[in-house]
This record gives sequence, structure tokens and C-alpha cells, in this order.
Amino acid sequence: MSISHPNDPISLPPLSPDALLIFKKMESFVTDDCIPSEQTFFSQVSSTGFTCIPPVLISLISKAKSLNLWNLHLKTSLSHLDYARICSVIGRSFLSPHATNTTAPDSGNMEVLHTYGTPLQKSLYLDGLKDGTMRSAFCMTEPEVASSDARNVGGTTFRREVRNGREGYVVNGRKWWSTGAHDPRCKFMIVMGKCISTSGEKEKGHTMVIVPRDCPGLTIVRDLTVFGHDDAPFGHAEVDFNACWVPLESCLGGEGEGGRIAQSRLGPGRIHHCMRAVGLGERCYEAMIKRSLEREVFGKVMIRHGTMQSKIAEGKGRLETARLLTLVAARAMDVLGNKGARTDISLAKILVPRMILGIMDDAIQTHGGQGVEGELALFYGAMRCLRIADGPDEVHVGVVARREAKKWMERNGKL
Amino acid sequence: MSISHPNDPISLPPLSPDALLIFKKMESFVTDDCIPSEQTFFSQVSSTGFTCIPPVLISLISKAKSLNLWNLHLKTSLSHLDYARICSVIGRSFLSPHATNTTAPDSGNMEVLHTYGTPLQKSLYLDGLKDGTMRSAFCMTEPEVASSDARNVGGTTFRREVRNGREGYVVNGRKWWSTGAHDPRCKFMIVMGKCISTSGEKEKGHTMVIVPRDCPGLTIVRDLTVFGHDDAPFGHAEVDFNACWVPLESCLGGEGEGGRIAQSRLGPGRIHHCMRAVGLGERCYEAMIKRSLEREVFGKVMIRHGTMQSKIAEGKGRLETARLLTLVAARAMDVLGNKGARTDISLAKILVPRMILGIMDDAIQTHGGQGVEGELALFYGAMRCLRIADGPDEVHVGVVARREAKKWMERNGKL
Amino acid sequence: MSISHPNDPISLPPLSPDALLIFKKMESFVTDDCIPSEQTFFSQVSSTGFTCIPPVLISLISKAKSLNLWNLHLKTSLSHLDYARICSVIGRSFLSPHATNTTAPDSGNMEVLHTYGTPLQKSLYLDGLKDGTMRSAFCMTEPEVASSDARNVGGTTFRREVRNGREGYVVNGRKWWSTGAHDPRCKFMIVMGKCISTSGEKEKGHTMVIVPRDCPGLTIVRDLTVFGHDDAPFGHAEVDFNACWVPLESCLGGEGEGGRIAQSRLGPGRIHHCMRAVGLGERCYEAMIKRSLEREVFGKVMIRHGTMQSKIAEGKGRLETARLLTLVAARAMDVLGNKGARTDISLAKILVPRMILGIMDDAIQTHGGQGVEGELALFYGAMRCLRIADGPDEVHVGVVARREAKKWMERNGKL
Amino acid sequence: MSISHPNDPISLPPLSPDALLIFKKMESFVTDDCIPSEQTFFSQVSSTGFTCIPPVLISLISKAKSLNLWNLHLKTSLSHLDYARICSVIGRSFLSPHATNTTAPDSGNMEVLHTYGTPLQKSLYLDGLKDGTMRSAFCMTEPEVASSDARNVGGTTFRREVRNGREGYVVNGRKWWSTGAHDPRCKFMIVMGKCISTSGEKEKGHTMVIVPRDCPGLTIVRDLTVFGHDDAPFGHAEVDFNACWVPLESCLGGEGEGGRIAQSRLGPGRIHHCMRAVGLGERCYEAMIKRSLEREVFGKVMIRHGTMQSKIAEGKGRLETARLLTLVAARAMDVLGNKGARTDISLAKILVPRMILGIMDDAIQTHGGQGVEGELALFYGAMRCLRIADGPDEVHVGVVARREAKKWMERNGKL
Repeated sequence: MSISHPNDPISLPPLSPDALLIFKKMESFVTDDCIPSEQTFFSQVSSTGFTCIPPVLISLISKAKSLNLWNLHLKTSLSHLDYARICSVIGRSFLSPHATNTTAPDSGNMEVLHTYGTPLQKSLYLDGLKDGTMRSAFCMTEPEVASSDARNVGGTTFRREVRNGREGYVVNGRKWWSTGAHDPRCKFMIVMGKCISTSGEKEKGHTMVIVPRDCPGLTIVRDLTVFGHDDAPFGHAEVDFNACWVPLESCLGGEGEGGRIAQSRLGPGRIHHCMRAVGLGERCYEAMIKRSLEREVFGKVMIRHGTMQSKIAEGKGRLETARLLTLVAARAMDVLGNKGARTDISLAKILVPRMILGIMDDAIQTHGGQGVEGELALFYGAMRCLRIADGPDEVHVGVVARREAKKWMERNGKL
Repeated sequence: MSISHPNDPISLPPLSPDALLIFKKMESFVTDDCIPSEQTFFSQVSSTGFTCIPPVLISLISKAKSLNLWNLHLKTSLSHLDYARICSVIGRSFLSPHATNTTAPDSGNMEVLHTYGTPLQKSLYLDGLKDGTMRSAFCMTEPEVASSDARNVGGTTFRREVRNGREGYVVNGRKWWSTGAHDPRCKFMIVMGKCISTSGEKEKGHTMVIVPRDCPGLTIVRDLTVFGHDDAPFGHAEVDFNACWVPLESCLGGEGEGGRIAQSRLGPGRIHHCMRAVGLGERCYEAMIKRSLEREVFGKVMIRHGTMQSKIAEGKGRLETARLLTLVAARAMDVLGNKGARTDISLAKILVPRMILGIMDDAIQTHGGQGVEGELALFYGAMRCLRIADGPDEVHVGVVARREAKKWMERNGKL
Repeated sequence: MSISHPNDPISLPPLSPDALLIFKKMESFVTDDCIPSEQTFFSQVSSTGFTCIPPVLISLISKAKSLNLWNLHLKTSLSHLDYARICSVIGRSFLSPHATNTTAPDSGNMEVLHTYGTPLQKSLYLDGLKDGTMRSAFCMTEPEVASSDARNVGGTTFRREVRNGREGYVVNGRKWWSTGAHDPRCKFMIVMGKCISTSGEKEKGHTMVIVPRDCPGLTIVRDLTVFGHDDAPFGHAEVDFNACWVPLESCLGGEGEGGRIAQSRLGPGRIHHCMRAVGLGERCYEAMIKRSLEREVFGKVMIRHGTMQSKIAEGKGRLETARLLTLVAARAMDVLGNKGARTDISLAKILVPRMILGIMDDAIQTHGGQGVEGELALFYGAMRCLRIADGPDEVHVGVVARREAKKWMERNGKL
Repeated sequence: MSISHPNDPISLPPLSPDALLIFKKMESFVTDDCIPSEQTFFSQVSSTGFTCIPPVLISLISKAKSLNLWNLHLKTSLSHLDYARICSVIGRSFLSPHATNTTAPDSGNMEVLHTYGTPLQKSLYLDGLKDGTMRSAFCMTEPEVASSDARNVGGTTFRREVRNGREGYVVNGRKWWSTGAHDPRCKFMIVMGKCISTSGEKEKGHTMVIVPRDCPGLTIVRDLTVFGHDDAPFGHAEVDFNACWVPLESCLGGEGEGGRIAQSRLGPGRIHHCMRAVGLGERCYEAMIKRSLEREVFGKVMIRHGTMQSKIAEGKGRLETARLLTLVAARAMDVLGNKGARTDISLAKILVPRMILGIMDDAIQTHGGQGVEGELALFYGAMRCLRIADGPDEVHVGVVARREAKKWMERNGKL
């Protein structure tokens, strides 16, 4: 049975009893601990920048660990669907993913190391990521090409070279949007590029190589802002690899396997972003309602104006649409696997950020001057990136259309 | 547990085994019997108009009965959710609701008679509706007022008068959009209006009265078209009640109870419309894909053009959004009851027709000249009415906004 | 100086004194004569169908002639800009184009015959069109292919054959959307197709041939409806040409010239449609305001509801956008010629119907049940066709994008 | 003749010869001087912040003065229409308004002082603003109320008090979004508030008072960011007035005249913002085309993808719509005066930012990662404010709807 057959009855099983407990605990943790800590976090960060992790976050991490709300993305007993529901709670505060060790790119890097890592790689990097003593970056996008077409990614090269009697790769290239590279805990980066063959040409397929943060030749060129925000202390860096040498054992999953690993990494990653987006959208939606109940304009409280009511009804529609499409995609992953769920994942990837941006824009408008200067503007910028990151809308439109056409042809005997 | 609590995990249980059997049977019936009969239906109707029911429909009715696909809306073992899933199959052909006795307004009238009818009313009218020998109309909307505000409906009056020693009501008024009134099988109409008190003034509340189709003074003034289509042989009539006398026993549920009955009738009715709309939208979406695979333009098959792919991806998003919002509303009715589910019902009522109209409009565009002259245009007109019927969008926007605001206040201790 | 240079100051000269007089006269004619005659026209047509022209239209024609409001599209002293302004007045009633002889396809056919016709063709056909005793059709679109790509039009062939000692063409093919073919005054059709070369193959370029309405082998297969409306007594026909023989002198402008003629014909034609669309949109916009001032809902007159105010402000924005883009395109035609104005024409062709449809849809919603059954629904269907006719949106999107890219490259020295 | 009568032929006279000269000169200045200086400006500002004006801006000011491109908003020989055209050129760089002394709020403050100022006020403040040695702020919006309803603005009070034998006002209150207050050249603020009557109550009408920047009790509480940008060195400040005393002669235009002055100030101000927005939108539109011609994705240059072509065609439509609505509003101000042009001004105020934001959002998407971190994101944030500043969309929707309804009633004899 295919969950995406239009005539097939979609079902969404309820949370398992275990998952429900986690869900409730997470709800309290986010509401009572994370959200109230945000202003403190901002204050602490404004004085420390990229140099250290604010104490308030360290406390939250410690609490999350003690509550067993740590590394939930690695908990195999959680279905994608249940994890999606929990993630929408996590997403209500931008601090919770950091506090619970479920933030990108580390969650994805953990999954990749878990699946493709050698025992040595695991001991060097996975254990540190899992206990939170280490952070990492994922270096894929390059400033010089349209990286939305992954085949374009190829400015970064790995050339074999023996140094001190040991065979390794010389890494050269420029990457950007390396999220988390600025984090003072960041210890390594997974870098996507192309091996140079013995004949001196670039191989066709991609390869992934692990480069330690302190590798000579690795420079963080600058920090990128998102709509003016620098996302300290984590940051989005532009990174230069200038003849960085790493041993052969740094290759992840084998030469030429980079594309396949990236795909396996991006599928769930996209949905994790959507899950959290729903939570953040929910928070903005509630802020809009709150504001509309508090302010009076032209003789009546805002909520009594028809234009305000339209914003709320639209917002509710957007929120539930985003939530349901995400849950369905997660459910499809449970039933059909990551590949079978690609239509549903791409659909969520296109529509969830659009829906949530719509809510945020209306919430900004409802808040007037406070809307463009406060956290709503910060959230808007972060959400806007989701329409570009992990494949821009345009790529996912193509995925959905091609797969839907193929499905139609199969069902109608044209294939 | 409230299903519409944003943090509560929405669940959609799978079809029960019994419902699954019905679902599959309905799928075959609609695909193999109803859709292939549509052109015949149109041909037969074009020569008979409003005078008789086309033979092809009579055959379908007979087959549906033999398959036990008859009166499913009355099957108490079906949850709203399961019925919603089945209805989305029924909706793929405009003939299936007529063939399975689940069409408006008869399905709603059956429910009302079942709940509020006296034994006499049931024997006179309900049995005939149930076995399909009788049809009915529901007369609510009046041409002279904005009927979207139900309180405005009051041009139709019921004045007590004794005739031949028997007490009864004299019905005066003008109604329109009385769907099915033209049907040759139509035997009675449920009329909403206001009683005249003994002091000669209109009562404040509404009352419903049953008026037989052949009651002296009842005239069908004209048939209304929908975007040029007359919907023969069923029709949407403008009906004049000119001093129609009916006995007191014709009152449904008691004087002053009309508003309450209308509400109870409209809730599920709205969702039934949405359910069928999803099915029809699905059909138009598939027609669009089919067309895009068959036609070549500017050197390549249409599906390979980016603008066509956008239409398909948008269409898929609209279809799944419409489907999911409807299923959630149906589920909410199962869990919370019709009243508790009002936010979800209104949300579906606003968004489902909008989504499906979007699909239909793109399908029309994809079909070019054939789009504006064929069945897609017919479907578009019918679907456009849904944004007006059973409460226009604007009314449901208000419902959602007010209920969401109230919910927020309750949760935040402001109520 | 290019009017479409973004930095160039667009100017729109005021109406010339002569044009102003015509404008004012037309305003009175449309307001006082045409609009009040519409209901009579519908009544008369409902009893006569396609058999004759309703007397009320004949009276209007006679009055328009006496007022010198006849054949204004041929008046060389009128700039495109001034004619656009006058056309937006004409468009307020669907009767005025017929009453003033400025309706498609006859206006375009007159222009084509005037420019490309031989003296014989002019005496046979142009004079009759100009004095209104004759009507014509233009047969381009074919049901079997995506005619939006003109190169696809090729199912209709012209094979040379001598009959009775006279050389001529045998016309074979099927056309549809031949507007006006049903009109009882229709005397000939201009047919687009491809000549068969002596070697029996289709020529690459298109050719246009004039076929008399009464030519043996020419059959009107059926009348096409637009959203259910048959547009009697003028009609949109599907026409079959089954071995129709016409003499060589019936060729218009020479073999292989059909594509060029079609282009010259479509440019201004597109803008004429837009001009009239603005007038019709204006009328619907005013109807919406009128309704919102007359009806009361939920305790106040509709106009006082915020959602209604949004519809009016949006409608005003759409109306002025549509008007201005049309005027600018007309002005560009005056200054740059039809070819130089292609970006502006395509832009208007894309956006004007979209804007006016938006107004109409809101007007329908505001009118409730009356909206879907009355003239607003009729107008909506007619306007919806404009997004398909004379090149669908998708084609004009390509035109604008390619021309804008080219302009950018020219200005930045990349071409 | 009313320019906004829907049937009246709108005309836009060409630039006067003098204005054309200025237009061309401005084009060179912006293209050759301002835009190339922007990166330098950012570099200089990043090291000096709010402490001084970057040297590159000082050079531009000097050049603009020498070219007579200074204070063009005060040039009485320029019609609003011609100034609008020139402003759309100015708007292409965010530096040009500062370089030409036409930036908000100083341009508006100059106009207000010119019209309502006493000779003393003019000599103290107007001369300095005009020669650019002085900057100013305009303090209207208050954080505690929905300032979009001007009547809500009343938290700031002026209480009469004699100090040192001189009568004056004690100003108390909190303002925010006081643009330019951070500028090191800022010397005074025009503050809107309410006088306290002798009986101790707030007067109903508003009053404006000039408060010197160095007045004891005036504190800049903080700088507001716009989507994360601080707009240094000009800034948007939150300002606290804690018992600031100013002499009676500081009142502008008389007590109770504040509302009227604000209206006269905001009308043209709104259009000036729109004018510049068009220029900035044009620049982003061109950046989008440039990018689409430079990058290759999925085997072809971006411009050849249908989805990219849609963005360009939509962008062109948005750009021309924004431009034309602005020009028409400016023309209406010339012909009908500021009050008569209110519908046109409000329409432009609603639609221009929406159109330009649409262009910017597509340009961001086309630029991928570079879109969210570079100048496009900066421009987006600034433009987003326009939907809130000077009356949010919702207020202008009401203006348009009410005025259109009134116009309809007048024309149809209902008023």
C-alpha cells in the first residue's frame, strides 16, 4: 500500500505511550525552560559573540540531559512520525534544538557518522558529538556556483599526496553557509568535493572528507549574516581550504560515495527543518493573536476588525497545512522509506516554509514597529533561508512534478 | 484532549476493516460505472431536461443498491473520518452522489427528519427519501436579503390560520437556490421562516415547516443557472410561496427550533461537500497531468516545461492540503462532536474550495480551448458555489478567528 | 528614446480634442443606450438563438452609425492610446462592440483585408464588413494540437487542384473556436493552414485562404459554450472543411505569408481585448460597490466590514493596474510600433485578464447566489478565455522574459 | 475634471525640459557616483558606527551640491510628477537621498518648517536643514499604543510651566522609530503630543513641539534594528523625554494644530517613499536578470528555465505597476492637490511596497545563499517597513474603500 496513492486512505497513528511521555516532558521543558531563557541568551551573546557558549545554554543542556531529552533523533524506538510531533514542540524555541542536541548540521552529521563512519571516525568524532562536547560543520555549498544543482558542486578538490610517509588528501576550495563553523566547540568539518584522478582530472562523483577544525590551511574567512543577524555564537561561515592535508582515513564512506551520503542525509534533514518550522510558526501565530487582543485601534480591539480576523483565519489554515504536510511526510518515511517518501518530503519542503513565512509576515504587520525590529524579524530571516537551503523550492517542484507524472503513467499503463 | 490544541498530536486512525471494504467497492463503482456513464447522462438529459430522470442514472441507482452502496451517510457504524474517505471517492463523479443517495439536500433532509421528525413526518417523507422514490428541497436562502447572516432570513412567514376546522400555517415568501426543487421526483420542501405571533409580529427565532410540492400556491418561478449550467434534471429553483396552507403537524421540531436544526444540519453538510470536492479536485488534477503528458508545445511535451511543473507541484500541494484539512475536520467531529469541531469545519469550508478551484483553474489553462467549454468549466462553476453556499468564506473566517481568540484566552487564563 | 527603458519617463499625452469628443459621445451611447438594452437583447436572443440578430441590436447599430461611432478602429486619426481610452468605455457593455462594429474577429479581419487584400478581395469582403452587412470568422485554432504554439497549427491543408479549368485549393481540416461563425450574417472565413507542395509534403510556413460560408464541404459541426454560455447569436463554432474548393485568388497575401499576417493581426487585437476588459472590469467593480452599500449583514451595511473594504481597495488597485498597463502598451504601439511594443503588449495580455478576473471573482462573492447565476458569471467565463486566447499566459511570459533579458544584455554591452 | 474618475482619460505629461536635464544629471550621479560608493560607505560605517558621517558620503554631498542636485524637493518649479520620476532614479541607491538632502524625515521636516514655522524657527532650524549642516528627527510613534490610529498617540504630554520667568512646556513621554535621531548631525526633534489643559486634562487635538537634541531630559534609550540592520550612522531611535522644558515659542503652528500638520506632511512623504521604492525595486529586478544570465543550473543557464522566466515576467509586471501607480498619484497631487489625491496616494502606498517586496523576494531566491546575506536582504527589510510606516496597509485600505464608496454615491445621486 502506497501512502501517497491519492485514493488510499492516509492514516496517522497516535503517539506511542513512550513517545507521548517524551512529548509532554518536552512541552514543559520548552515552555518553562527554553523560551524564558531566550532574552538572557541574547544578552549573554551580545557581550561574548562567537567566543564562548552562553552559560544559560549550558544550563539548559544539562537539564535536557537529566530529563533524557537528549539526542532524541538517535532514539530508534521513535518513529519519524512521533519524532516529527516532538520536533514541532522543540521548534517553538530556537534554543531547544541546541539544548537537546538535535540541531543542524550536527544531528545530520551524527547520522552520517553512525551509518558510514569507520570505528576510528566514530571514536574520534561521533562520541564527542553525541555527548555534546564537540560540534561540527557540513561544507557543501560553494559561492561560485549554483549549488542547488548538486552536480555543480565541484570547486573543492581532494588530491592524493603522501606526506611524512603517510597517504592523504590535499583539500583545496572555498565553501560557504557552513553552519556552526564559528561555534567555539566546533572540532571538524565534513567537506564535499571531488577527488582528482591520477590523470589529473576531477572524478565525476562526489566524495566526503573529514577535516579537523585546526587543520593548517583551514581559515574561516568571514561570518555570513542572515537578514542582518549573525547567529552568534554558532554562525554561518565562509571557509577557505588552502592545501589542507588530511590522511586517507578521513574519507567518509569511500571515494565517489559523497552524493549518495548527501542524499541520505538531506532527506530526513529537510523534514526535521519542517518539523521545527511548524513549532516556530505556531509561536508566531500565537503572538499575533495575543497582540490582536491587547491593542485597540480605531475604536475597538484589533481582533474585532475584519482584516485582523482574516489574518488569524489564514494563519490557522497555514499552520495546520504546514503541520499536516509534515506529519504525512514523516509517516511516509516510516511506511515507504526515505526514497519512497520523496514526493511527500519535497511537498513539505516547498510548502511548510511558505506557510510559516505567511504567518510570520502577518504577525510582523500586526506588531507594527515592534514587528520589524524584534524576534519576529529574526525568525523571518531564518525561515526565509529554508526556501533556499537543502534544495531551493524550484528543485523540489521538479521532483514532485516528475514523480507525479511517473505515478500517473504507471497507474494508467503508460510505463 | 482537544484535537485542535496546536500542541496535541493529531491522529487519523486507519479505515476500519468494514469501511475499507466499502471504500474499495465504491472505488470500483465510481471508476467502472459512474464516470463512464457521464456522457450518456448528458446526452439523455439534453433531450429530456427537467421532465424525467435519465435511464442511465436509474441503472446506476439500481446497481448501487445491489452493492449496498446506498444511504451510506445513514450507516451509523461509519465514523465521520471513514465516511469522509469514502466520500472523496464518491466525489470523483458528479453522478455517484445521485446514484448512492448521498446528495444534498436530501442527505441533510434525511438526517433532520430522522432526528427531529414526528412518526407521521417520518412515514410520509423519510421512508420515501431513504428508498429513493422521493426527493426533496431545502428552502432557506431568500433573494432579497444577505442570507449569509441567517438572522436576515425572515421574508418568509408562517401565520396560523384555521381552514376546514383544522389549524395550520399560511406560508408566504420567496426562496431561491432551492436545490433539487426541479427534480421530477421532488415531493416536498423544508421551508425556513418566521412564525407570526398572535399580536401580528414576527417571532424572533426561526421555524421550519414542511410544504408538499403540490401544495396550492407553491410555484417554481424559474430555474437558476450556475455559470450558465442549469443542472438539469435536478435544478436550483426560485420558489414562490403564495398563501400555501399546511396543517400544524407540518412544523419540524417545534416553533422557534429552526435555527438550531439548521445548525445541526449544516455542520456535517459542509464537510460532506468538502469531502466530495476533494474527489472532484483529484480527478481534475489527474486530467491536468494526463494532458501535460499528451501535448507537445515549443519543441517538448508540456510536462517538461517549468511552468507546467509548477502547476503540478502546486496542484499536488493543494490537493493534499484539501484532503488533510477535510479528514482532520471529520476526525474532530468524531472526537469532539459537531460543535467542538467548528473551527476545523470552518477551516475546511474556507480552504477546500479555494484549493480545488486553484487546481481546476490550472487544469482549465492546461486544456486551453477545451478547458473553458468542457466538463472542467462545469466543475469550476459548481465548485465556485461552495465558497458561497452554507455560509460564505467571510462568515467562516469570523468563526475561526473568534474561536481561536477564545481558545488563546482560555489557555492563557484570560477567560 | 525607448518608452520601455525603465529609467525613461513614461508619458501619456491627454486625449486629442477630436478624440475627447468621441470619448464623451461614446460614454453617453454606452451608458444610455447599450447597457439599458442588454436585458432586452437577452430576452430576444433566448427565443431566436442563432437564427437572427435581435432587433434591439439592429437599432443600436443604426444609432451608432448616425452618431459616427462606427468603425472607430479604422479611424486613422485616432492614436492607439486614444482608441484604448475609447475602447475601455466601449467595453462596459458587451453590446457596444457589436453596435459599433469593433468586435473580434471582424475588426481584425477588416485590418487584414485592408492591408493585405487584393482589390477583388476588398470589394467582395471588406466593403461588406465595413458597412456591417457582412460578418466573418477567423479559423486558426485546431482541436487536435496545442495551438498556443502556432507552429503546431498544421492539420488544415491547402492542396492545389484544377476544377472546371480553374486553379484553386482544396481545403481540408478541422478548426474550432471560430468566433462568429454561427452569426447568421457570417459570409466568409479566413482559414489558416499549410499548402501541400507539388511533392506532396506540407510547406513549412502558414498560408491564409478565404473560404465562403456557403462553400460546399464547409460544415459547422457544433457550437462551443464558454462556461455553459453559447454566446448566441454570434457563437464559437467548431468547423469542418471537407474538400472545400476555392480559387487561387482566395489566398490572402500570398502563400507562406500566413504567419506574418497572423502576427500583425494579433498584436493590436490583444490590446483591443485588454481595453474592453478594463471597461467590463470597471462595471463589475462598480456593481460590487453598489451591492456593498445596499445589503446589511451582521448588524451593519456590508461596506463597513473590513473584509469588504479589502475587496474594494484590492479591486481599485486591480482596475487601475489593468487600465495603466493597457494605456502604456497602446502608447508604446504609437511610439515604437507593434513590434517594438511587444513587451508592453505581452505584459498587458498577461496581467489585465488576471486583474479583471480578480475583480469579477470578488464581485461574485459579494453578490452571493446572484453572483454565480447572473451576468457576473457570464462575464467571468468570457474574461477567463482571454487568458487562453491570442496566446496563453505562458507564451507571453516567455516573450517578456526573453525580451527583458535581451534588453539587459544590450544595455550592459553583453550583446 | 477629476483624474480619478474611472472614465476620465488619465494623462501623464512628459518631463518638462528643465526636469529632463535634472533627470539625466541625476541618472549619471546615481549610476556613476552613488552606487559605486556603497561598499566604501559600508566599510567606513562598520568602523565608525553612529559616531560620524563616513567621508564617502561627505564627498557625495559635496558633489551633489555642485551639480545642483541638492534640495530638489524644495524646487517649486518641479511638478510632483516630475519629482516622482527623478525620485525613482534617486531611489536606485540608498546613498543618493542622503547625498541630495531628500531623505526622510528631514525633507518632510523642511516642508513643515517652511509652511508652518515662525521666522525664529526657520532661522534656528530650517536654514541648517537646507544647507545640510543640521539633521532632525520626527517623533510620532509611541511604543505603548497602536500608533497606526493617530488618535491613539497621546502618551506624550506638554504641560505649561514657567521656568526662570519664561513660559514653556514640560515634555514627557516615550517615542520610538525616531529615524535619524542617532545621526551625529541631528540637532532637534519635532515631537507630537498632547497639551495638558489648565484643568489638568489632556487636550483632544495634537500639538507639535520642537525639542533641541541637547535638551536636558532627552535620552536616546536605544537604537532599533530593522531585520537586524541598525541603519548606522543614521539610526532609528527610541527616545525618552523626561521633563524636558522648552519655551512656548517651540510650538509649531499653534496648539492643537499637530494633526493637521502631520497630515499635510505625510501625504507627499508617502509618495516620496513610493518613488524611491520604485527605483530600488528596479535595481533588484535588474540584479535578478543579471544573475539569471550568469548562473547555470541543471544543464542550462537559469534564464532558460520556465520558473525563472515566470519570475522575470512577474517582476516586470510588478515594477511597471508600482511605477505607474506612483506616477498617477503624483500627477493627481499636481491636478487635485494633496487632499483630492488621497485615494491615489493610499493606493500607491498599499501596492508599491507589496510589488517591490515581491521583486526583492524573487531576487533573493534567484541569488540563493547570497540573497539572504547581502544587500538584497538589507533592502528587503527596509522595504518591509514601508508597509507599516506612515500608516499601515490596513489604514490605507480603509481610506480607499471609504472614498470609493463616497464617490460612487455622489455619482449615482445617493449623497
